[in-house]
Amino acid sequence: MKVDGKPYRTIWPHVDGETVEVIDQTRLPHAFVTLRLASADEAARAIRTMQVRGAPLIGATAAYGLAMALRDDGSDAALAAACDMLLATRPTAVNLRWALDSVRAAVAPLAPAARAAAAFARSAAICDDDVAICRAIGGHGLALIRAAYEAGGRSRPVQIMTHCNAGWLATVDWGTATAPVYIAHDEGIPVHVWVDETRPRNQGAGLTAWELAGHGVPHTVIVDNAGGHVMQRGPVDLLITGTDRVAANGDVANKIGTYLKALAAADNGVPFYVALPGPTIDWTIRDGMRDIPIEERDASEVATVTGRAPDGTIAAVRVTPESSPAANFAFDVTPARLVTGLITERGLCAASRDGLLGLYPERRAEAHA
Amino acid sequence: MKVDGKPYRTIWPHVDGETVEVIDQTRLPHAFVTLRLASADEAARAIRTMQVRGAPLIGATAAYGLAMALRDDGSDAALAAACDMLLATRPTAVNLRWALDSVRAAVAPLAPAARAAAAFARSAAICDDDVAICRAIGGHGLALIRAAYEAGGRSRPVQIMTHCNAGWLATVDWGTATAPVYIAHDEGIPVHVWVDETRPRNQGAGLTAWELAGHGVPHTVIVDNAGGHVMQRGPVDLLITGTDRVAANGDVANKIGTYLKALAAADNGVPFYVALPGPTIDWTIRDGMRDIPIEERDASEVATVTGRAPDGTIAAVRVTPESSPAANFAFDVTPARLVTGLITERGLCAASRDGLLGLYPERRAEAHA
Repeated sequence: MKVDGKPYRTIWPHVDGETVEVIDQTRLPHAFVTLRLASADEAARAIRTMQVRGAPLIGATAAYGLAMALRDDGSDAALAAACDMLLATRPTAVNLRWALDSVRAAVAPLAPAARAAAAFARSAAICDDDVAICRAIGGHGLALIRAAYEAGGRSRPVQIMTHCNAGWLATVDWGTATAPVYIAHDEGIPVHVWVDETRPRNQGAGLTAWELAGHGVPHTVIVDNAGGHVMQRGPVDLLITGTDRVAANGDVANKIGTYLKALAAADNGVPFYVALPGPTIDWTIRDGMRDIPIEERDASEVATVTGRAPDGTIAAVRVTPESSPAANFAFDVTPARLVTGLITERGLCAASRDGLLGLYPERRAEAHA
Repeated sequence: MKVDGKPYRTIWPHVDGETVEVIDQTRLPHAFVTLRLASADEAARAIRTMQVRGAPLIGATAAYGLAMALRDDGSDAALAAACDMLLATRPTAVNLRWALDSVRAAVAPLAPAARAAAAFARSAAICDDDVAICRAIGGHGLALIRAAYEAGGRSRPVQIMTHCNAGWLATVDWGTATAPVYIAHDEGIPVHVWVDETRPRNQGAGLTAWELAGHGVPHTVIVDNAGGHVMQRGPVDLLITGTDRVAANGDVANKIGTYLKALAAADNGVPFYVALPGPTIDWTIRDGMRDIPIEERDASEVATVTGRAPDGTIAAVRVTPESSPAANFAFDVTPARLVTGLITERGLCAASRDGLLGLYPERRAEAHA
């Protein structure tokens, strides 16, 4: 999407064809800085330090990291070592493992000297595929926004609420939850986005707001506490979020706080859609409420808030007393009953086993295993 | 309640009998500093700058401010001027007006020279009355905590969630929502409190956590987003909050985010109680959802977070992009259907017109006007 009028992806090959560039997301929203990653180690560090984040972007960065490792040494040993090293950066990231496996499978049959070029090509294809998937999600979600615009008599902007950042910064381009919004905006449908701050890491206030501003999409930041009130007083036409994992029964794991927004949507008759690429469905989990584990992160994220100090530096200020413990649950699970529908690259479906299998019939055996 | 083992109120007469002392709440939770207010002007400034906050404490501070004005000049003109000046500090605060009227009524019939002493006495009585009311609320709420303890087989602490600060810092002592908690703790019933951060002003993370820590009550701070998840995974035995205004039909206006917590409580079978002194009931509002106005505060509170910087200074860091607008709704309204009960100084009642009139039958004519 655009940053100050210029189109960007979150990762792109440098003109030398041997390295890649990314946006340093730890500097957002206060500074727009791009980084050149010149080695597998630098790619791993970018993932580890969250300079890149979001499952698809992490996968793409790891793929390019593997390509750079093979550029330096195409041997089987180097291939295995680089995969292990990159995988260890975020061991629970399903997409990271998938991207590394994809590159590895593409290059393993080749002679060592031919592997790097093939790995760069495969990495570029992973990026292009991600863009195509997000674009397809956007196309299906666009129909919902267009319908809301018509339902409002074309008299007012479509009001959309989102939570956290399932935007283009988390993917290679377009984003998942934001793809319908960007496409609608680009097609001239007036939209306005209510952006939830998303404590503790403030991905809404920091990233979603920044990317919407960069692309020129009207939006308003609110604290997480305000989402219910805004839906109550309305109008809010749609709540759209991304997801980290959808269980086979349609239960949705996403950033902490999604469940509260889903409750408010249900209480106020606001449809709640979850945008996701197919690989986010975890067919091995039959009951998401029961079986999706919830990561607890370091309590310091709750005890402090990071932002731009008056002198321009980035600082973390402490908001809790020294003597008060804090708990930091990273995700919550929204039961399928609160989800109006899922928006995938293959279309819309109900948040249920039958709904998902209607779009992904090839997973039937797995879903009933 | 106690601060590091020593009992405090939020406001108390200095030993000279002519001035008062308060806790500077703008310094909490990072520093415990008391202030001496020596004039009506200083009392007004303390209210205006939110060194004192919370309806009962604002009222008590204004009452003492008026007493100090009369100490300097007992004339009718001085009385009227001081009332106007103090009322202007927070013109929408019902309790402030009530406290000033109460002192004025007590002193107006007296000779100017006798007014100051009477005003100090009346101010002290206002404080003692507030303590008695909060203590009574606590006694009624204690029964709920005790019942939860018994229901849990006395095998685990009673798990209580709260939002914002309806603690002793907002009153003269005990607080409203926290009074049952402090009494239970003092009586040896094990309790644990989940403390919501309460963005944008972080009264939960900053004030509720600080007062619980000071009194030795076990607690854990969570971000506002996490309340739904914590109730879902449980156990949470009770959600208890305060309120800024209860409509005659039982709808509850309280700090933004209360509605979301109430929804999660209802969805998870957690009883939600609202603690309040009788004067918080606005008998003139028959339908809270429809008629309670929602204050919008300055957007800068959303765009920034204030806390303690690493160098020990208090600093505000910006969390949103410069180009992103923000909206700051101060309160929301929770419909009575989501409120299990109201805890008042007269006992428990349903959140309904009939429930409220059962406890306050003298307001029947007004409620049906």
